[in-house]
Amino acid sequence: MSVIQFYFDFGSPNAYLSHKVIPDIEARTGAKFEYVPVLLGGIFKLTGNQSPGTAFAGIRNKPEYERLEMRRFIARHRLTAYKWNPHFPVNTLQLMRCAVAAQQLGILAPYVEAMYACMWEQERKMDDPAVFRQALLDAGLPADQLLELITTDAVKGGLMVNTEAAVAAGAFGSPSFLVGAELFFGKDRLRDVEEEVLRQAGGTATKA
Amino acid sequence: MSVIQFYFDFGSPNAYLSHKVIPDIEARTGAKFEYVPVLLGGIFKLTGNQSPGTAFAGIRNKPEYERLEMRRFIARHRLTAYKWNPHFPVNTLQLMRCAVAAQQLGILAPYVEAMYACMWEQERKMDDPAVFRQALLDAGLPADQLLELITTDAVKGGLMVNTEAAVAAGAFGSPSFLVGAELFFGKDRLRDVEEEVLRQAGGTATKA
Repeated sequence: MSVIQFYFDFGSPNAYLSHKVIPDIEARTGAKFEYVPVLLGGIFKLTGNQSPGTAFAGIRNKPEYERLEMRRFIARHRLTAYKWNPHFPVNTLQLMRCAVAAQQLGILAPYVEAMYACMWEQERKMDDPAVFRQALLDAGLPADQLLELITTDAVKGGLMVNTEAAVAAGAFGSPSFLVGAELFFGKDRLRDVEEEVLRQAGGTATKA
Repeated sequence: MSVIQFYFDFGSPNAYLSHKVIPDIEARTGAKFEYVPVLLGGIFKLTGNQSPGTAFAGIRNKPEYERLEMRRFIARHRLTAYKWNPHFPVNTLQLMRCAVAAQQLGILAPYVEAMYACMWEQERKMDDPAVFRQALLDAGLPADQLLELITTDAVKGGLMVNTEAAVAAGAFGSPSFLVGAELFFGKDRLRDVEEEVLRQAGGTATKA
């Protein structure tokens, strides 16, 4: 079975949108997306890149086009639950450390589902510690255990190692996907990701 | 019949790559691409945007990824004639004015074909007036007539009007495509362009 690394940070709305269509791609291809928590701010620091919001500010038409492509993606995949987070940009350091902690506890999948909903469906201010703790409790996750784990060097270091590995694989932003050694950037490459999965699996040739 | 505006400048390799796959899209959809000459430098000036080469310089992984996506596109569509132009970036002002002049003479299509080949297959330095003139002669185009036309206000103004119209339609870079009122940016959106053509045509292929 093919495994695709999905380098994700809850702070990226385009990573959320990708997350929502991944189950369909898994169902169609039989491949599995491995969620790898990274710190997007760390990727920007390591590569000298900036968020689109910063990089495109002041450029006429370009931010509007980015929003247009988001609306198109949302419409195409009927992602009606999506809401812009009014607290954006949100500092995701604790959220992403906690993803590494959730991984240690074997509860990454329900953690990801709950946190993405909080960020991009429920407009919560997830860098507020009280809001974050309440979100964990609301999701039925072991809040105290997770919040203790994120203070450990193993968790902090784990997030840093993931972030550095993403950059070593060629990432410079979010969302990034790795199919074998092939990197893909952006939600709009998910069709290419899917084709590459099938190509590597020797299935229906897509290099037409 | 659907008509798609293709805002193009010979200086953009991604516009060349798009140009090479447009005939296939026309054949599949029955739509027609209308080539609209614009000055990419003018679009950048009007929008405050920069070329990818400038904007991504110094960002780790991002220029490499842009090149990787070019190689993928070239491989997918078997565009074996493509060669990086060693004189890049080339000042395309005369080339693009001449496209407007060629349009006036009803010879835009052969002009486009010849100039794209000179730029992105034959490594010619097209902002050298002698090279440019020779390229026109080699292509069997009326060099003297064209080179006289590009000094006229009608041609100069025509290019400016096209460039402003592209920005008014939402463009900020190259290649840009307009399907009805829907703008698409980048060679990697050509699949979306194709889908939008079919959608606007009523969801059925219009292939004759």
